[in-house]
Amino acid sequence: MNLTKSDVLVEALPYIQRFRGRVVVVKYGGAAMTDPDLAALFAQDVVLMRSVGMRPVVVHGGGPQIGELMQRLGMEPEFRQGLRVTDADTLDVARMVLVGKVNRDIVSAINVHGPLAVGLSGEDAGLITASARDPELGYVGDVEAVNPGIIDRLLAEELVPVVATIGTDLEGQAYNINADTAAGAVAEALRAEKLVYLTDVAGVLRDVKNPFTLIPYASADELDKLVADGVLTGGMIPKIASCTQAVRSGVKHAHILDGRVPHALLLEMFTRDGIGTMVSP
Amino acid sequence: MNLTKSDVLVEALPYIQRFRGRVVVVKYGGAAMTDPDLAALFAQDVVLMRSVGMRPVVVHGGGPQIGELMQRLGMEPEFRQGLRVTDADTLDVARMVLVGKVNRDIVSAINVHGPLAVGLSGEDAGLITASARDPELGYVGDVEAVNPGIIDRLLAEELVPVVATIGTDLEGQAYNINADTAAGAVAEALRAEKLVYLTDVAGVLRDVKNPFTLIPYASADELDKLVADGVLTGGMIPKIASCTQAVRSGVKHAHILDGRVPHALLLEMFTRDGIGTMVSP
Amino acid sequence: MNLTKSDVLVEALPYIQRFRGRVVVVKYGGAAMTDPDLAALFAQDVVLMRSVGMRPVVVHGGGPQIGELMQRLGMEPEFRQGLRVTDADTLDVARMVLVGKVNRDIVSAINVHGPLAVGLSGEDAGLITASARDPELGYVGDVEAVNPGIIDRLLAEELVPVVATIGTDLEGQAYNINADTAAGAVAEALRAEKLVYLTDVAGVLRDVKNPFTLIPYASADELDKLVADGVLTGGMIPKIASCTQAVRSGVKHAHILDGRVPHALLLEMFTRDGIGTMVSP
Amino acid sequence: MNLTKSDVLVEALPYIQRFRGRVVVVKYGGAAMTDPDLAALFAQDVVLMRSVGMRPVVVHGGGPQIGELMQRLGMEPEFRQGLRVTDADTLDVARMVLVGKVNRDIVSAINVHGPLAVGLSGEDAGLITASARDPELGYVGDVEAVNPGIIDRLLAEELVPVVATIGTDLEGQAYNINADTAAGAVAEALRAEKLVYLTDVAGVLRDVKNPFTLIPYASADELDKLVADGVLTGGMIPKIASCTQAVRSGVKHAHILDGRVPHALLLEMFTRDGIGTMVSP
Amino acid sequence: MNLTKSDVLVEALPYIQRFRGRVVVVKYGGAAMTDPDLAALFAQDVVLMRSVGMRPVVVHGGGPQIGELMQRLGMEPEFRQGLRVTDADTLDVARMVLVGKVNRDIVSAINVHGPLAVGLSGEDAGLITASARDPELGYVGDVEAVNPGIIDRLLAEELVPVVATIGTDLEGQAYNINADTAAGAVAEALRAEKLVYLTDVAGVLRDVKNPFTLIPYASADELDKLVADGVLTGGMIPKIASCTQAVRSGVKHAHILDGRVPHALLLEMFTRDGIGTMVSP
Amino acid sequence: MNLTKSDVLVEALPYIQRFRGRVVVVKYGGAAMTDPDLAALFAQDVVLMRSVGMRPVVVHGGGPQIGELMQRLGMEPEFRQGLRVTDADTLDVARMVLVGKVNRDIVSAINVHGPLAVGLSGEDAGLITASARDPELGYVGDVEAVNPGIIDRLLAEELVPVVATIGTDLEGQAYNINADTAAGAVAEALRAEKLVYLTDVAGVLRDVKNPFTLIPYASADELDKLVADGVLTGGMIPKIASCTQAVRSGVKHAHILDGRVPHALLLEMFTRDGIGTMVSP
Repeated sequence: MNLTKSDVLVEALPYIQRFRGRVVVVKYGGAAMTDPDLAALFAQDVVLMRSVGMRPVVVHGGGPQIGELMQRLGMEPEFRQGLRVTDADTLDVARMVLVGKVNRDIVSAINVHGPLAVGLSGEDAGLITASARDPELGYVGDVEAVNPGIIDRLLAEELVPVVATIGTDLEGQAYNINADTAAGAVAEALRAEKLVYLTDVAGVLRDVKNPFTLIPYASADELDKLVADGVLTGGMIPKIASCTQAVRSGVKHAHILDGRVPHALLLEMFTRDGIGTMVSP
Repeated sequence: MNLTKSDVLVEALPYIQRFRGRVVVVKYGGAAMTDPDLAALFAQDVVLMRSVGMRPVVVHGGGPQIGELMQRLGMEPEFRQGLRVTDADTLDVARMVLVGKVNRDIVSAINVHGPLAVGLSGEDAGLITASARDPELGYVGDVEAVNPGIIDRLLAEELVPVVATIGTDLEGQAYNINADTAAGAVAEALRAEKLVYLTDVAGVLRDVKNPFTLIPYASADELDKLVADGVLTGGMIPKIASCTQAVRSGVKHAHILDGRVPHALLLEMFTRDGIGTMVSP
Repeated sequence: MNLTKSDVLVEALPYIQRFRGRVVVVKYGGAAMTDPDLAALFAQDVVLMRSVGMRPVVVHGGGPQIGELMQRLGMEPEFRQGLRVTDADTLDVARMVLVGKVNRDIVSAINVHGPLAVGLSGEDAGLITASARDPELGYVGDVEAVNPGIIDRLLAEELVPVVATIGTDLEGQAYNINADTAAGAVAEALRAEKLVYLTDVAGVLRDVKNPFTLIPYASADELDKLVADGVLTGGMIPKIASCTQAVRSGVKHAHILDGRVPHALLLEMFTRDGIGTMVSP
Repeated sequence: MNLTKSDVLVEALPYIQRFRGRVVVVKYGGAAMTDPDLAALFAQDVVLMRSVGMRPVVVHGGGPQIGELMQRLGMEPEFRQGLRVTDADTLDVARMVLVGKVNRDIVSAINVHGPLAVGLSGEDAGLITASARDPELGYVGDVEAVNPGIIDRLLAEELVPVVATIGTDLEGQAYNINADTAAGAVAEALRAEKLVYLTDVAGVLRDVKNPFTLIPYASADELDKLVADGVLTGGMIPKIASCTQAVRSGVKHAHILDGRVPHALLLEMFTRDGIGTMVSP
Repeated sequence: MNLTKSDVLVEALPYIQRFRGRVVVVKYGGAAMTDPDLAALFAQDVVLMRSVGMRPVVVHGGGPQIGELMQRLGMEPEFRQGLRVTDADTLDVARMVLVGKVNRDIVSAINVHGPLAVGLSGEDAGLITASARDPELGYVGDVEAVNPGIIDRLLAEELVPVVATIGTDLEGQAYNINADTAAGAVAEALRAEKLVYLTDVAGVLRDVKNPFTLIPYASADELDKLVADGVLTGGMIPKIASCTQAVRSGVKHAHILDGRVPHALLLEMFTRDGIGTMVSP
Repeated sequence: MNLTKSDVLVEALPYIQRFRGRVVVVKYGGAAMTDPDLAALFAQDVVLMRSVGMRPVVVHGGGPQIGELMQRLGMEPEFRQGLRVTDADTLDVARMVLVGKVNRDIVSAINVHGPLAVGLSGEDAGLITASARDPELGYVGDVEAVNPGIIDRLLAEELVPVVATIGTDLEGQAYNINADTAAGAVAEALRAEKLVYLTDVAGVLRDVKNPFTLIPYASADELDKLVADGVLTGGMIPKIASCTQAVRSGVKHAHILDGRVPHALLLEMFTRDGIGTMVSP
């Protein structure tokens, strides 16, 4: 109905004004990446955000796809301390898959709408400097520093950077980096308006089995307390840690969204209530 | 519903991109001006359009308000050829009402949202050069030329010009100008994207008594033919003439909207179907 | 005589250099406004000042003209504490006269020389924020703040702003403001080089009946002392207060000139001796 | 000897001035890419060229490396008309190797000297639009258009673009492109000063077995005649065709150099005699 | 009288506006150069012209001063065809006197008012390219080309170029150039508003013995005719030729003024009647 | 040999990058100025330095040439305290020789390569303000202040300033200034990268008779100590004082080079070892 339309518009336009020129770092993964329909809607959302002047940056990993190629090559994964050991050959495979396949697929999906996206690896122009986490784990790296110059330049040209999370040390040795952590570090370095995690859950839930226990808003301190009290547990912990770290380091808000909802990004950006969980400093 | 919201957003965002930086001249009058609630919504629409980067320009007349003050002053209106004769005293009254009252009220309504609007008369910085239409009619003027420099400058500063249609000749003599015509001339001079007439009808109707006969889209030639064939008649003729003249002189589209519909401007700008009648070259 | 001409030029050119790009706020009123010949010379002076790169700003009131229209409308002025009470209807009349008549006449007189002047009300783009002086007096306002952005922008475009002293509060309610005070506040906000009052006296006189007692130069402290000592009295006191306030708030010099002298502004600006009284910090 | 040093400097400095700001497209391959020592010297040359204001662009293929991974994956190469058929799986492998391995290695070698290089695929920001050469060959593409915007932007930021020659059609389908041809098309689109092929021969030789028959300078017409006359034959033909095409389309000079000579690029750029074969329009 | 002052100001200010930013080339010589009082007034005029935004360029010769030093050095002047032969030693002397003495004295006189003037020789930055007029005359040169870049740059910095008329050929050989001719060539190259010759006569006189026969205004064609008819003769002919040549090549007006009149430049620039003779195209 | 060439290039290119845009003040004199072949090589070096983006500034004196002209004029030099007394006539001669002859010859030698050099005197645009050293010595001046504006402007236009060291006081009186001292003051005022003295010795020698005792590098403190200890003596002392003063006032390095070595400047700038003595803070 027309009346409804003007309500949505009156609600959305001030957000469009407020977010114009602001950087939003989106950690992309899960169903939104593997389901072709959702992937196409995600690409459309990114293009629409950019069309009204926002500056989206996409950060992604690709663990399952790496495993798949290793399997085709007959490589045997080795684990220590519960983490996959990354030797030179494994790193080569990881880099080929992340930079040469997953990154390319995201760039292609966006560029169906026009010549907008540019794929980056953390190795480009010194974007992500990394160091070995533990000699026993091989080329598994931690973020030492983010030099966001190349992203700033692409954003200034109204392009959409898509970042594969391979880092490099000063001697040129590459490392595989956890994408959740890298997304937070990139958002901090860019002093982003928002850091958004697209996940396969509805947001932060007090009871992971009950979607009605969604926490729509929380401060970093509140989340810390919920973790300390043992209310929040499991796989969500690392993402929560990245969120609280980011909002304490200059990012305005961090979000954990349900990437299975079509147009989850648009709804979060341009409606009053948003979806998922929003973390404030 | 969230899903509906994302539909409206996916529909609206491309228009927001397309119209960014574009000039829209709105001839303001009728119920949208005299009904206080509609006037407040109009001011909100203008502010929202500006907030997403459009450049609205408001042009207005004020015949009824002029008549009212003349009556309070005991002045007797005189008519020749069906037009009101404007002697020096009448011109003074018209100028005071248009520039010192109607224009001020519109500026105030917009500026409730921030220091955005600036009132202008066609006399400012040579905006509207006029000449006498007919000596018998006194200071009733026709537009000779529009020098849009001052409007361009205010738009470049992201301000909203509100124009009262008093013109002046090179000797500094003021004239009262028809606001519908002046709006068209201003839109041409600004090479506006759109010229919008807010009226008290649903748009151009084949049968003025039947709202189901609304003509949603028409070319200038089609409208000319409908007028020539006697299908369109009456008070709509001058507005139609201004619309066809404008789109033939560089304005992309002209619109005749129903100003009685709340948020008529927003619906026209940001939805696929729009409302009222759209005239193309 | 040629020799005399070169003397005048050698004297004037350094002032032209010194004042280039500087803002001069002129409070316009009295005989210079009501005598048509002097009004035309004033307009010429403003245009000449601008032609050599100065940035004149004209501020005006219009008490007598307001009273005249009230009388035509049969409105009975009401006084409390010696001040005219301004109800909503009186404010409407004041605004129509100041913005729609007096302001327009000044703009027209200047624009005979080219499309140079732009009329402003204190309501435009948040120029003058006002508050009620006293509930008993109705819409008589005091200046709360001056936001000189719109004037700066017009000056940057080499236009001449002409300001009617209607202010507005944050809810959009208009107020009538004393023009002498407003001129001082505008000069302060613009960090003007000069604030000039055109009056119907020769300047500040020790003995108002004896023009030979003119005080050509005085510091703010000296004037304060002369007022405290009862030497200076009567209607000049408020103008003196505005001058001393202005020079203590960043305006370089304030002047009280005899607007009855033809080309009073030029003589003050471009000759060594000037005319009238100059107030320094 | 110092005297020798000043001779080299006096010879080199004018070239440094002449080539400042000029774009040089280097097609990188052969021994210079596979020999680790030569690869390090190549990276140093690129960095030195950039350090004196030249704008090098590196374009590369990687046929042997693609074949190697296919072999590891047990994929059977299929040939038609002497060309390898590229099905979807082969394309995926080619893209992973070129973008995710070869390109990365070049970027890393350069970035040992600082955060200078950025890897690109022809898919980024619409860089290379391609079309299928022949349905029978699958995803083997020809260059339809080069949109050098992203390269221009990186060069303007003093970065070194390294381009893997994967192209894409408007629907987002990727294609594998011949790197020699792509380098020529990129040089044309950039209106490059020079197009340089690093090869494993001394240049264009009249008798491929006799290095003393090197042709140091030739016009496009002269080369065409030598090919038509059957003097030049074999694997050099496609590179010669790219060179003559490039210099006829706006590239100032094309060069075929011996990439096995250490610092071949520097010697060509900054000495009077250069090395290899230079092709002029 | 004040009234007189305002008359002069009203007359002068429009000229100040009109000439702002315009280049005026002044050929300086005669009494205005040799009389210390007039020289000081000349320097003041140049500074005042610059102070109101004009861009004066001073061009000068120095024949008498050259002769003086030659005499001190015991050098015997030699004449052919009525022109002084300039051998290498004479050229050295001329260059030392013009660049190292006359030019310096003018620069010093101006710089008493501030760091404004910069001395130039036609040799600087390729300003005046010259060729030998006649091998028999030695290093007497004609202007081949004027490259006004260095003057434009100094003017853009609001400096006053003072030009000694030594030229140079492409091999670096210097030549002595006639200053009247050089001034005209410089004015043409700068597309000057005015070319002014300061002389020791009242202007162009029909009868050189009768100052009442001054020709205040003349077109180039009229002057040509007066010369052809034998009315104008003698030493004024070359200056007239330079004037007519200049106005036909883009200079707006050329003037021949009486440099013996104090402030001759100011009176010409800023009064309606001017002094001397004005030549129009 | 090609291999040698690439060695020199690999060594030189980083210096070219490092010194790009940096100011180098060269005090020019001695054999490099009087030997025509060395003078031509010097001019070439200056042009080559500029061609790769350095900003050379040449400062020169000319004592011998002044003495020569004085002798031709039969002027008797007078000495007090071992210094030549400079009366008005001597100053005139010095100024003519320095500005009108020596300066011109340097400018000409450079401009054989293009319109690059501009001659300056310290009198131009207030470049060098001077005061009398001692009334007994007449117009021998000390540097009071350097206003490098005019040099900055010429450098910004990629021109080569050549400075004759005549200074002036605020009343416009000229003074002859020692060129070694002036060069140091100019380098300080420009915050130069390097101050270079071209001399007729190999550099600073511990034993002036033994070239193997050259001190290639020294800090200001080390030099001070060597002077205090009496190791360094004689004519080198003033240049050493200027060097230590300069590096302590913001100049990065000062150099004392052997101007008799062809291309001494190039070798110093672009080779690792340089020549002569380098002084660091």
